[in-house]
Amino acid sequence: MITSEREKRVVLAHGGGGQLTDELLAGTVFPRLGNETLNELLDSGIVDTSAGRLALTIDGYVVQPLQFPGGDIGRLAVSGTVNDLAVCGAEAKGLALALIMEEGLERVLLAEIMESVRATADEAGVKVITGDTKVVGRGQADGLYITTAGIGVVPADRRMHPDQVKPGDVLILNGPIADHGLTVMLAREMPEVKSVLRSDVAPLNSLIVGVLGKGGDAGVVFMRDPTRGGLAGLAADLAKRTGYRVVLEEDAIPVRPETRHAAEMLGLDPLEVANEGKVVMVVRAAQAGAVLAALRRHPLGADARVIGRVEEARDGICEIRTIIGGRRVLQKPYGEQLPRIC
Amino acid sequence: MITSEREKRVVLAHGGGGQLTDELLAGTVFPRLGNETLNELLDSGIVDTSAGRLALTIDGYVVQPLQFPGGDIGRLAVSGTVNDLAVCGAEAKGLALALIMEEGLERVLLAEIMESVRATADEAGVKVITGDTKVVGRGQADGLYITTAGIGVVPADRRMHPDQVKPGDVLILNGPIADHGLTVMLAREMPEVKSVLRSDVAPLNSLIVGVLGKGGDAGVVFMRDPTRGGLAGLAADLAKRTGYRVVLEEDAIPVRPETRHAAEMLGLDPLEVANEGKVVMVVRAAQAGAVLAALRRHPLGADARVIGRVEEARDGICEIRTIIGGRRVLQKPYGEQLPRIC
Repeated sequence: MITSEREKRVVLAHGGGGQLTDELLAGTVFPRLGNETLNELLDSGIVDTSAGRLALTIDGYVVQPLQFPGGDIGRLAVSGTVNDLAVCGAEAKGLALALIMEEGLERVLLAEIMESVRATADEAGVKVITGDTKVVGRGQADGLYITTAGIGVVPADRRMHPDQVKPGDVLILNGPIADHGLTVMLAREMPEVKSVLRSDVAPLNSLIVGVLGKGGDAGVVFMRDPTRGGLAGLAADLAKRTGYRVVLEEDAIPVRPETRHAAEMLGLDPLEVANEGKVVMVVRAAQAGAVLAALRRHPLGADARVIGRVEEARDGICEIRTIIGGRRVLQKPYGEQLPRIC
Repeated sequence: MITSEREKRVVLAHGGGGQLTDELLAGTVFPRLGNETLNELLDSGIVDTSAGRLALTIDGYVVQPLQFPGGDIGRLAVSGTVNDLAVCGAEAKGLALALIMEEGLERVLLAEIMESVRATADEAGVKVITGDTKVVGRGQADGLYITTAGIGVVPADRRMHPDQVKPGDVLILNGPIADHGLTVMLAREMPEVKSVLRSDVAPLNSLIVGVLGKGGDAGVVFMRDPTRGGLAGLAADLAKRTGYRVVLEEDAIPVRPETRHAAEMLGLDPLEVANEGKVVMVVRAAQAGAVLAALRRHPLGADARVIGRVEEARDGICEIRTIIGGRRVLQKPYGEQLPRIC
């Protein structure tokens, strides 16, 4: 009966960015909207026009609480959109901001969130160039939902795409994982717990430009930010999409002690938790040293490391090798582990 | 106390696209996000880039009911975004679609709405190239909210802007007003009433291209679609923004008999009701005949007429001359006359 209910109605688990989200999209959305650009399922849609290669991205933000240690829904909305453009190799040219507000939202809170949008946009060097506001009645939303879209331009000589990935490529991560999702869960579920944990939410475009420069790819063939579904979801998708085996080294993946502690308290696997200031770069091995050096010159990449590689085996499996020598298959999370985290 | 509550909290009336929406934006949003592009307050933000002049637009759709005579939230979302690009003189190059779904939404209904998105996008000759889905719990949304964004390219020799408007220009409207807002209100408030009234929701880009061609402006100096706030809101804004007097002729503005009847039943002024398939073009008088002829060649412009003009007086007032010879000042609606109409 649970299966049949999921086939008839949208359930919370459809929103987790896991296998059930894929099922909802494959069952209900893509058969109707699919086309050669949407079907790519990249973080931005990219179209060739007479004016060049344009990238467009959109994301809805429904995080609860609206403010949390290290950020708020405004910083999240701007960073997420800037990052979705940046990981596609696009330079952000403008943001659009749509607010759906619940009647009764405090204007002081709205003002604080708008300040945060502005500060984060300034940090990313991009502007909100258009927007929209709607108000719905009490009980028809939950304070504030923000949807942001962004446009960018992709240099002609740059093409980040999973089909560029080859055996021998290495995976590089810019720092410790799981801080965002666990911060939000802790703030919501255990507000009485004191922790130094803070969300990693940040715009990554200057970090990425530091690696790529203004054109070309510096050996980076594909990038993605491990948001919903976490690093596990990203790596499992990469293996499935390329058809190669992807191997992660568990002891190479940085997790802060306070993050690990929070994950244990909440019963969550840090590998499956959303990040909002992390990027995984798939890099040709010969250029990995230069990419690492460039990342480490930036404050958001000081802890950058090689965390895995792409292997020859054509089984499309993601394997993680554990510290004590074990191996296990890493799967994309199934449903909603962490509702309303972003 | 009502005033003080509005200053402290967001109220439904802030969402109506009237003076109170302006107040919320001026008081809380623009002081924090304002910049030279956002401050233009056009239907799309337009940025100059090395790749040309790019237009970006976004709109949140919260209409209730989700399906209504003549359309649904999907047709509305695609048409609204295509139209916001088209009235800025931009050719749409791609759409982005973000869904916020309430737990329990029927998948059959979602599928029907996706079909409608696809059909409307096909009609407009544009594709959904990227998207996002979020699910929130019961009572945290109302079925489905859709936010759509769009990118477009503006020809180098085309610049639609209120600062181009001059005395002597005429206002041309493509057909009868108020059908969308009244259809939705009737479906929601008086579902037992039988009426032939249908929403006018439609993508207007082919109509507009028929007038403008591929480049240049054909004498059209500014366009806007009279959505929230209706024709009254558009005309009052135009007068205020240009600083000239704008005069409308009431007997030139087409209103269908069934629309007038519904407005009377609901106690609403058709001039203040939202349209979703109408455009007002401000046109140099010498080219008005050619523009009218081009509009009338298209099914969505068969009933196009000159409905008013821009006069010399520098008082920024919008005046409507009534059928019986009277004159009254037309003001932008104050607050929320019609909640959740789009």
